[in-house]
Amino acid sequence: MQLFYTPDIAPHQQSFVLSEEESKHAIRVLRMGAGQRVQLVDGRGGLYTAAIVDDHPKRAVLEILKAETGRGKRPYYLHIAIAPTKHVERVEWFLEKATEVGIDEVTPIICEHSERKEVKTERLKKVMVAAMKQSLKAYLPRLNEPLGLGALLEHERQGQRFIAHCADGDKEYVSEMIVPGGRYTILIGPEGDFSGAEIEASLRAGFLPITLGHARLRTETAALVGCLEAAIANRRY
Amino acid sequence: MQLFYTPDIAPHQQSFVLSEEESKHAIRVLRMGAGQRVQLVDGRGGLYTAAIVDDHPKRAVLEILKAETGRGKRPYYLHIAIAPTKHVERVEWFLEKATEVGIDEVTPIICEHSERKEVKTERLKKVMVAAMKQSLKAYLPRLNEPLGLGALLEHERQGQRFIAHCADGDKEYVSEMIVPGGRYTILIGPEGDFSGAEIEASLRAGFLPITLGHARLRTETAALVGCLEAAIANRRY
Repeated sequence: MQLFYTPDIAPHQQSFVLSEEESKHAIRVLRMGAGQRVQLVDGRGGLYTAAIVDDHPKRAVLEILKAETGRGKRPYYLHIAIAPTKHVERVEWFLEKATEVGIDEVTPIICEHSERKEVKTERLKKVMVAAMKQSLKAYLPRLNEPLGLGALLEHERQGQRFIAHCADGDKEYVSEMIVPGGRYTILIGPEGDFSGAEIEASLRAGFLPITLGHARLRTETAALVGCLEAAIANRRY
Repeated sequence: MQLFYTPDIAPHQQSFVLSEEESKHAIRVLRMGAGQRVQLVDGRGGLYTAAIVDDHPKRAVLEILKAETGRGKRPYYLHIAIAPTKHVERVEWFLEKATEVGIDEVTPIICEHSERKEVKTERLKKVMVAAMKQSLKAYLPRLNEPLGLGALLEHERQGQRFIAHCADGDKEYVSEMIVPGGRYTILIGPEGDFSGAEIEASLRAGFLPITLGHARLRTETAALVGCLEAAIANRRY
């Protein structure tokens, strides 16, 4: 069934009018007509089944037949703060894959060794919306505006906080550290890794050093491994 | 240090002559000269440190200073048989990521619902070689020529064998099924999943149904999740 992302739908609505863009897509492009059924996701766990009652090409009217909330809610909260890669496509695929396997919040962090100092979050958000729809999820991960690492350390104080740096030192496997059912933040550094000063500052701020395995992983691979470690650790919940 | 892939080097060699292509790359492109050091990987676990003794642009001669074997050997053997995706870039990134996180053998399988019935393994192998070098690994995963699913079921008889299909039925998490230190084969289906007949045939051939989680994953994501499940399960080894 055709799925639409409708963040502005509220629970308990009896009917809903598709935006002009979605109306055009449904009625003109997909040639859908009155009586046909569609699905809506609100990005907050709501999945709605609806029927087209007025196939107006600019404001198609839907009748809500069924509403489901908390669809696919995971028992943990994962925030990945990742230094954008030089080639933005690598961040884009991380966001696509992370949305598929499960993530709640992403913050691009600008680090000392970052080759890329800015990202367009609008475009990245489109990638996440497409991945959410493609994987039939009802939750859209939150994508924050880019922050300097210092500001993030200042701001992120909740739950278990980890830094996956590549410098020497004692590190635990994140899968052994994660407490199931919790809230986690994992810092993933740029191609050139975090600087010594950044690692120090992170440890002072209470972030624990973790390893994602012995292999030297690309930034975006490391970030995805973090998502999977959290998912697998929480299965034992 | 510059890393070259030299599959034809043998252990205990005192010296080695780079191929014409690699010689040109080292001497003409990278402008390396006599006395400079390079690293060689043979794709079979061998990592060599060498010094250029003759910077000939077509047959540069190296003196082998140090040889390490079994570098980064993992305690398990993982074979992923994956239906090539419609867009081949998705297979390519799976191979890049799988090489980074660890895989031993890949077989493209042609299934009933496969939208792509052929793949050029030469190009895919280049992706794996680049990923091996980028992630400083000494093992190059084996990439088999494409096989029909039936032929693969016939041919793959060793170790633990799993099928990650999306149809209903009892399934265990692969992470719970994996016996650390073993040999595993995981079948990953095409965009349209395996057909009912293919699932039946796989079960008859002794493949066990597994799940990679609740999310609907793309083919290439599911395959990478399989690699990570195996890696994480083997940490407890």
